[in-house]
Amino acid sequence: MYSVSVRDSMMVAHSFTGEVFGPAQRLHGATFVVDLEFRRPELDPDGIVVDIGKATEVLKTILSALSFRNLDEEPAFAGKNTTTEFLARVVFDRTADAIVRGELGSHAHGITSLRVALHESHVAWAAFEGPLKTT
Amino acid sequence: MYSVSVRDSMMVAHSFTGEVFGPAQRLHGATFVVDLEFRRPELDPDGIVVDIGKATEVLKTILSALSFRNLDEEPAFAGKNTTTEFLARVVFDRTADAIVRGELGSHAHGITSLRVALHESHVAWAAFEGPLKTT
Amino acid sequence: MYSVSVRDSMMVAHSFTGEVFGPAQRLHGATFVVDLEFRRPELDPDGIVVDIGKATEVLKTILSALSFRNLDEEPAFAGKNTTTEFLARVVFDRTADAIVRGELGSHAHGITSLRVALHESHVAWAAFEGPLKTT
Amino acid sequence: MYSVSVRDSMMVAHSFTGEVFGPAQRLHGATFVVDLEFRRPELDPDGIVVDIGKATEVLKTILSALSFRNLDEEPAFAGKNTTTEFLARVVFDRTADAIVRGELGSHAHGITSLRVALHESHVAWAAFEGPLKTT
Amino acid sequence: MYSVSVRDSMMVAHSFTGEVFGPAQRLHGATFVVDLEFRRPELDPDGIVVDIGKATEVLKTILSALSFRNLDEEPAFAGKNTTTEFLARVVFDRTADAIVRGELGSHAHGITSLRVALHESHVAWAAFEGPLKTT
Amino acid sequence: MYSVSVRDSMMVAHSFTGEVFGPAQRLHGATFVVDLEFRRPELDPDGIVVDIGKATEVLKTILSALSFRNLDEEPAFAGKNTTTEFLARVVFDRTADAIVRGELGSHAHGITSLRVALHESHVAWAAFEGPLKTT
Repeated sequence: MYSVSVRDSMMVAHSFTGEVFGPAQRLHGATFVVDLEFRRPELDPDGIVVDIGKATEVLKTILSALSFRNLDEEPAFAGKNTTTEFLARVVFDRTADAIVRGELGSHAHGITSLRVALHESHVAWAAFEGPLKTT
Repeated sequence: MYSVSVRDSMMVAHSFTGEVFGPAQRLHGATFVVDLEFRRPELDPDGIVVDIGKATEVLKTILSALSFRNLDEEPAFAGKNTTTEFLARVVFDRTADAIVRGELGSHAHGITSLRVALHESHVAWAAFEGPLKTT
Repeated sequence: MYSVSVRDSMMVAHSFTGEVFGPAQRLHGATFVVDLEFRRPELDPDGIVVDIGKATEVLKTILSALSFRNLDEEPAFAGKNTTTEFLARVVFDRTADAIVRGELGSHAHGITSLRVALHESHVAWAAFEGPLKTT
Repeated sequence: MYSVSVRDSMMVAHSFTGEVFGPAQRLHGATFVVDLEFRRPELDPDGIVVDIGKATEVLKTILSALSFRNLDEEPAFAGKNTTTEFLARVVFDRTADAIVRGELGSHAHGITSLRVALHESHVAWAAFEGPLKTT
Repeated sequence: MYSVSVRDSMMVAHSFTGEVFGPAQRLHGATFVVDLEFRRPELDPDGIVVDIGKATEVLKTILSALSFRNLDEEPAFAGKNTTTEFLARVVFDRTADAIVRGELGSHAHGITSLRVALHESHVAWAAFEGPLKTT
Repeated sequence: MYSVSVRDSMMVAHSFTGEVFGPAQRLHGATFVVDLEFRRPELDPDGIVVDIGKATEVLKTILSALSFRNLDEEPAFAGKNTTTEFLARVVFDRTADAIVRGELGSHAHGITSLRVALHESHVAWAAFEGPLKTT
């Protein structure tokens, strides 16, 4: 299995609901350094997993829609705790959608799975990984 | 699959038996920077993989029982080479036990696998990963 | 010149005033990974720059007073942009105060300067460094 | 599953063919920081995954044969784009061959899979992983 | 003294003249991860060292003029070994020029010194630092 | 001022004397990732700060004389606490001696200062820096 990963980051405010979160129930914030990994069993005709320029652009677009915001006020996340693992899934789903829409090029349909990791500090990170649905 | 990882470290002395270890047959030491990853297919009702506060505390407790010690004198490791990969397994087993004992909270029973990585230098690391036994 | 550094982190929400900040004028957040460096020309009688246990504790205390908060609502920062460089200075001043109060031990009076670096992402960080005032 | 990883690096020049590569169609270069991971389900009789001294030596030898070269002029890669993912596969195949030749010691035949990751910058990396053919 | 740093990277081919360079006399390449630090004794009226958006843009522009090129063919470097330390100086000088031209904003004239570090691998880096000439 | 840095590591056992060290009074160990920085105001005739091959070799030799040992039994350190900051000074002094002995080449006499940093974990490091005595 081949993979290619690109890294970018976002800066958000949010708060959590539930005693398990302790002081993180208060409004606070985080920088998430995001690693987006594309996987496929065979390289495309250019000898690559994905167009790294397009991959970088797609990740930047997805993170720009989240960054410099208070996620507590985003309608898309109403009633949800926007935990690191939850946000990893959000980036996963939006990347999968971008592939379906062709934003990563026609060869990107050969990508079979993704892994999204969000680093929230030097001692904690979370990830979501899974196969892409084929249509 | 979702995952959450936390990082801590320990500092130990030890020596190895066997020609393959070369100068590491002498008493020496290591800092192990330890990454402990929890995995589960679905988030718990709070939208998390594991209570990160409890995860950090459990890792700290496991490493405190090993750190600032000469592992050659630990009865639990008698007759064993406490290699990086062996110690990764030790941390894995002790974390699995902590989950069974409920130290990571009741929702932690949804955790299906763990990965423990020990970084011994800027150019070498080892890991042990595997499923958790369900009872 | 000898130095010892310890690292910890904080997670805050805030917003900035001024066109130069672009989208960061909106309420957002950041993880700051904080490196606190103590410097002195000679080691103390124990052969150290500072008691690393106390240094770690002092840094944790200073960051806990800032972390998991919306800095826009902190009276101490009213009318100020809590930029990364500004916060580096805040941590510097509070560490200097802790030394004067003796929280780093009596030998810590031999510390002559500090450097505080705050990493806000994988591609940006800020710092404040300077001598300690001697009384 | 146990794993041990070692890290080294190489510095190469090359150019790519295909519009998808944009400015990378020009002759340029890269440092690849290479992580080579060995995996096996059980430790060998010495309590290790692989002789880390031999693993380090094998990786250095493989990278030395690629480093400080213009890969466009290497006969082995004629007509190929020596992309990061392609080179990850090259290092994978050459490590697999070294195991078969016994360069990692007789116990290395218990190694069941490898993963090779090449970091090309602070924001991009690629990898190839797969099982080792058993004979 | 306050500082702000931003990071970006470039990928170049080059070769060196002189026996001291050993195999690096052959055409090869490197990724340079570049850290550009701006320093000033007092913050500007916005509470910052430099407009980080402009700083990022200026660094990107400087690196784009060097990246994806064979530096042996650049007229500006004819007869020079484009070593890591030499290139650190090049980025320093071009950043100093950008400040003079006003590309970092009018408040950037308060910047008193710069440091440019180029990381060429996980085990080697070089830097140039110095005061800015005031006119 | 120009600088070049190289990185290597060592693994040692030791114990400390003094209540300030808490559990580190017991025999334990550490990996020290060592960064050795050479500084000079002007480049040498080859356009470099130091022969990086020789610098790497000298650092390796210095660390090999310390690594895979119990420092409590080294006659050179009798009666001393081999703290991280103390060991940074040891590496500094031994590098300075190597320069005087010509092991870094004749141009290395233009090096005016050194900085040695020892990373003992992901959250703690120490350094010693100073000018080289000219004769």
